[in-house]
Amino acid sequence: MQIAVLTFDRFNEIDSFVVSNLLNRVPGWRAFITGATARIESRNGVLVDAQKKLEFMAEADAVVIGSGMKTDEIARDPVLLARIRLDPARQLVAAQCSGALVLGALGHLKGLPACTDQYTRPLVEKAGIEALTDRAFVAHGNLATAGGCLSAPLIAAWMIARRQGIAEAERVLDSAAPVGDAPAYVARAVAAIRPYLAKAADAA
Amino acid sequence: MQIAVLTFDRFNEIDSFVVSNLLNRVPGWRAFITGATARIESRNGVLVDAQKKLEFMAEADAVVIGSGMKTDEIARDPVLLARIRLDPARQLVAAQCSGALVLGALGHLKGLPACTDQYTRPLVEKAGIEALTDRAFVAHGNLATAGGCLSAPLIAAWMIARRQGIAEAERVLDSAAPVGDAPAYVARAVAAIRPYLAKAADAA
Repeated sequence: MQIAVLTFDRFNEIDSFVVSNLLNRVPGWRAFITGATARIESRNGVLVDAQKKLEFMAEADAVVIGSGMKTDEIARDPVLLARIRLDPARQLVAAQCSGALVLGALGHLKGLPACTDQYTRPLVEKAGIEALTDRAFVAHGNLATAGGCLSAPLIAAWMIARRQGIAEAERVLDSAAPVGDAPAYVARAVAAIRPYLAKAADAA
Repeated sequence: MQIAVLTFDRFNEIDSFVVSNLLNRVPGWRAFITGATARIESRNGVLVDAQKKLEFMAEADAVVIGSGMKTDEIARDPVLLARIRLDPARQLVAAQCSGALVLGALGHLKGLPACTDQYTRPLVEKAGIEALTDRAFVAHGNLATAGGCLSAPLIAAWMIARRQGIAEAERVLDSAAPVGDAPAYVARAVAAIRPYLAKAADAA
């Protein structure tokens, strides 16, 4: 399982690194920081080397679109959008916070409500997408959105549960959860993603 | 407020980036990825430019020691340890997961129990430090330890609460918390750090 974690100029470090770190805990899985440029600067000025180019998406089994300070611009940049080729029929695809704007611009959220963060919500709604405010995670088939940077573990858990089962998702969450609170932490995360696993199974 | 987030070769991305991202949300605060080398490779092969050298610690108001695959080696490297100069009388100092090994090697945990992750616990105990298993966060005065990567927000919240008050810590946590679960998320984090704020105030 190869995962492209799309990471753009002025990216949010939590989104890209929490999800890639957790996904890399699954034996045989490799998640890569995937950039439109060879060097990527975070919202706080950290310079990072992209591990893969955007074109890696074509061979990836899953794609995560992280958020950042410029995601709104990216969602209006036809040249960059043309390089983002998603195939939700084959790939698991998830967007975090303002990443939903990119998913929307690419036409993948037609008629589907999305999760996003409180700051991006007005922009998502302006784009004609219903923004859910009562939950941090929603999925429709192979397409998921999450809201609030610290909901990144939900994206990782959903991808793992979809491909390897809930027990493996629980194992990975437990390995990173706050000590002393791990069982409750894992249970909360699983409760957030479980409704969308059942639906995916029903649809299959 | 200037914060050095110590980030070593083969570092855990969650530890260094969650805490720096959250601390940078406080107006006037700057948290920097601080490395022993100019380029740092994460445990998953991501190459990052250090924003500051280790010597930045001398002027930092707070220091976070992140964890990683080589923290155990670092804690046995006298040359590297000699470059890590902490002053808990003046600085807020926190270690995440295996970062506790570095704090211990520097003599800062004498007689103090520490929080660490489940994998580091045997090493921490071998170093003669009591490892707490019932909680993710503990502080003694200006010295804190946290266990489980996803407890990184507790370190950020504690530093913010200590210097700017609980309300600012709550505001920052809320800005990143999972949508829909934010009030409960913030309340859980504050409950974890609050006992150590009272003790710090008592001691002051």
